[in-house]
Order: sequence, then structure tokens, then C-alpha cells
Amino acid sequence: MKLATFIHHDVQRIGIVVHDGLIDLSAAAPELPRDMIGFLEAGDAAMARARAISKKPDHLLALDAVALQAPVPRPGKVLGIGLNYADHVAESGRTPPEHQIWFNKQRESITGPGAEIVLPSVSPMLDYEVELCFIIGKSCRHVPKDRAHEVIAGFCIGNDVTVRDWQLRTPTMTIGKSFDTHGPLGPWLVTSDEVGDPHALDLKCWVNGELRQSSNTRHLIYDCYDQVSHLTQAFTLSPGDVIFSGTPGGVGMAQKPPRFLKTGDSVRLEIDKLGRLENCVAAETLEVRIDD
Amino acid sequence: MKLATFIHHDVQRIGIVVHDGLIDLSAAAPELPRDMIGFLEAGDAAMARARAISKKPDHLLALDAVALQAPVPRPGKVLGIGLNYADHVAESGRTPPEHQIWFNKQRESITGPGAEIVLPSVSPMLDYEVELCFIIGKSCRHVPKDRAHEVIAGFCIGNDVTVRDWQLRTPTMTIGKSFDTHGPLGPWLVTSDEVGDPHALDLKCWVNGELRQSSNTRHLIYDCYDQVSHLTQAFTLSPGDVIFSGTPGGVGMAQKPPRFLKTGDSVRLEIDKLGRLENCVAAETLEVRIDD
Repeated sequence: MKLATFIHHDVQRIGIVVHDGLIDLSAAAPELPRDMIGFLEAGDAAMARARAISKKPDHLLALDAVALQAPVPRPGKVLGIGLNYADHVAESGRTPPEHQIWFNKQRESITGPGAEIVLPSVSPMLDYEVELCFIIGKSCRHVPKDRAHEVIAGFCIGNDVTVRDWQLRTPTMTIGKSFDTHGPLGPWLVTSDEVGDPHALDLKCWVNGELRQSSNTRHLIYDCYDQVSHLTQAFTLSPGDVIFSGTPGGVGMAQKPPRFLKTGDSVRLEIDKLGRLENCVAAETLEVRIDD
Repeated sequence: MKLATFIHHDVQRIGIVVHDGLIDLSAAAPELPRDMIGFLEAGDAAMARARAISKKPDHLLALDAVALQAPVPRPGKVLGIGLNYADHVAESGRTPPEHQIWFNKQRESITGPGAEIVLPSVSPMLDYEVELCFIIGKSCRHVPKDRAHEVIAGFCIGNDVTVRDWQLRTPTMTIGKSFDTHGPLGPWLVTSDEVGDPHALDLKCWVNGELRQSSNTRHLIYDCYDQVSHLTQAFTLSPGDVIFSGTPGGVGMAQKPPRFLKTGDSVRLEIDKLGRLENCVAAETLEVRIDD
């Protein structure tokens, strides 16, 4: 099942993508929460209800009549793992990490399909990273690896957009991974049962139609289940949390010479079974903003 | 004005601490949001309404009749700066950073006055860090340093509890700063007007009554306004976001020999004008938890 967050007639809600459109879940099952985190928090019963509805499509909208958003537009938290494909470790001039290396992306970085990636005024070193993302379905702690699949609601594509100089000038990476609009996510959440083995998926990235990254999730150093097990030794993962599982080789900084993203560039990502995520780069309108 | 989040008769809401108790803001002004983030999002008008109420105390509860929570129990995001007092840089064996070094604490780490700090089963290297914290009052971006005071709603005490081996075994620090219960915050938010200059406050930490840290916020390398200016170059700060502004020298790991926290220890923090925050250390009950 493919679960999407979308806007239709200025109202954001969730739906199920089927072969000939999108089922408006809020119309088909008004008793269900209308946002993805609320839906996931509602647990197995809500998921079963959605599954039943997906078998008898009704309340169909055309996909091109809605504006798809990130499946979780404002996650509780967003975490990313660094240096998690051997070829990316090599191109970064690093050695394979002894431990999982984690950073946060700020939740405001998340955007959806078609949204602009803003080239910041403070750096020209804007880079792309195609990644398999997984979305947590259950509040959990101390999850052993062999049960980690139980807490993953599903998967989607993520672009771990990075401002390289800001990432590399301090050891913690955090700020260079966290600029607003630098977390495109989509096009929808594909539930785990439909994905099957998440560690056998081709993932690819094109910039302006030119293939830059091409690998397979079987090459993950720490797989998704290792990641869940590690993180939950320290803290609770909650429904709607988004984990970026690492990027393979081929990032812009590792090109000879480096090729960073510039205004007008198009970045297209594809992962087997998850679809396509495309975003364009736009210049920043630099202005002080202090809302009341 | 001192704004608190509290639980009374099993219901969580916000109030104003006055000299003889706590004004139940939800009773005195039922039209205001009942949670701190909602209240801050409601902007200057809500703050002015609370201020008027604070002048004519009514709906008073005794402080010992309520359970104080962290002023923002579940912030949108929590950020901490590393190596931001010269004496702590020295005791850590580091050199002063060329750039601000940032990490996130996960939002689930936040707890309140009197709550347990859990000694994790995976490490004996549990450490304390007294810090001045500031809480964002306005959604903002690209804030110049000389306007940064406008976006800070107020200040409180924070304990940036750290699992040292997990912090230091990867460069990003993130996981070792993020364990559940490792972000005690309180006892309440003191608004900026009442604090005055935030860079002239004594801050102290005692473990079992023994003074371990004692400094003044005038020794911050990057002050609170530098921090706001830097962060908002990259991303939006939002009402309720919590920033840990760094810890001075005297942490447990820097004692000769190192003295880490153990079960039953009491950690008491005090900062001028902000009050006192005390928490005890408890052993972890290790169990797999997967909620539906």
C-alpha cells in the first residue's frame, strides 16, 4: 500500500495511491486521523481499515489534481547516518566507521515532491544524496535486530541535501545537513509488506538527466535493522520519525572536479518499488524574517 | 514573568509562578492555548494577556500541589552547542573551535524538575553539564545578532546529560547526547525582560551537595545572540525550540580521576534569576518496548 500526504482545495490530508488515482482517506474513512503521524499512532487497527478501503477504491482523486507533500510533512525527528556505503566512504577519503555515525536533520528541512531546493546565499557547495528512508510506525525502545522490521511502517525516497562546507567545517555535520528545504521526501510511504526485502533495491540519482549515483541497498554497511537496533538502545523512536539510511558513491563533491548544484538544476531520484522524487534548485531570497 | 508547565489532577497545562504560588493560566484565561508551544505561537497578544493576569493573581495553586514539568515538555527541536566555555575546552583537551559546533538532543530526552535521569545499561559513563538554555518565541530566519533578543522568549536551566563513551566514539556526538531522560529542563521559563542581561549569570552544579561546576555566562565563547544568528543562517527556529548554550568546566569526566554519575546520585543546578533544577539518577529497567 502506498500512503500519501497531499493538498487538495487548500486542505492537507492523507490518501492511498492506487493504479488509477488516489483514494481520499479522509472522505472514505472520516473517523481516521487526517495526518500521517496521527494515522500511524492509531496503530494496526487504522492500518487494517486503510487496507480494506484500498481493496474497494472509492472517493478517487486524479493524482494530477492534488499537490503531493512529503509523506510525513513535519516528522517528530529526522536522523541520518553518515558513511554507510563503502564506495561513498572511499570517495570521501575516509575509513569505514567503527560505529554508526549519526546526525539530525532539522524537521523544518523536510519538503515534498516538486518542492524547491534552495541554494543558500552563504554557500555555493550544495550537494545531492539519494537515500532509502524508512518511517517508524510504532513507539519503541531496545528493539533487537530481529524484531526491527516490526517498527518500520514503510519506506520512501529521500534526498539528504547537504551544504558541504558547512557540513565539513565542524565534526558534527549537523548544520550543513539541516538547511530549510534540504530534506525532500517522497513521493509516498510504501508499506513494508509491499516493499519486501528493503536491502535489495536499486537506487539512482540523476542531475539534469545525467546519472550521478547508482547502487543497491544491499551495499549498506549498517542495514535498516542494524540502525533501528542501535538507535533504540539510546532513545525512543516514535511514529512518523524519518531515518535517512545513507548514500552511495557519486555525490557532487566527489566528482573530478567537484560539481555542485546550481540554480535551475533538476535532481531526480528513483528507488525500486518506491517511485521517483524530483526537485529543482532555486536561488535564495535573503531576508530577515521574524514572525509574530 | 515565570511561565511553567505543570500537571494538576492529571491534566497538563501552563501557569505563571508568582511569589505565593502558581496562577493556573488555563483557568484565569480559558481562551489561551493550554500548552507552552501553543502559547508562544499565539505571540505578543497572548504574552500581554498573561502579563496582565500576573499583576492581579487569581486562580492560585500552591506550588507543592502541582507537578512541575519541563517548561516545554516536547520541543519541536532541541539543539546544543559544544565546547563553548574556555575552561571546558581546556579540560576536554581540545582547542577552541573555529566555528560553532552544534548537535541535536532528541526531543524525547526532555524531562522536568525532579524527574529521574536514567543510567543506561549500555554505559557507566554518565555525566552532568549545567547550561543556560534559551527558548525561542518567534518563528524566524536570518536574524542579525543585534535583533536576536527579539526572538528569545526566555531562559531556563538545562542539564545536558551526556553518555561520554557514546558521545566520543563518533565525531557527531549526537547519540551520546540524546538518551531518553537526558535533558532535564526547568524549573520554568523566565521571560527575557525579567532576566535582563543573559550574559552575566552565575551558573553552578552540585553532585550530592559537592560543588562541581561554577562559572558565569559572561564566559560563553559564542553568546546566545551569536548562536541565534548562526543557526538562522541555515534554518528556521520555531516557537518552543530549546537551545542549550554550552557548559563550563568541571564535568565528571574531567575530574582526576573521572567521577561519573551513579544510581542514587542527586544533581542540583542553579543559575542566577532562573532558580534551581534537581534530578536524581536511577538504574535502567531494560526491556524491549514496541507499542501498538
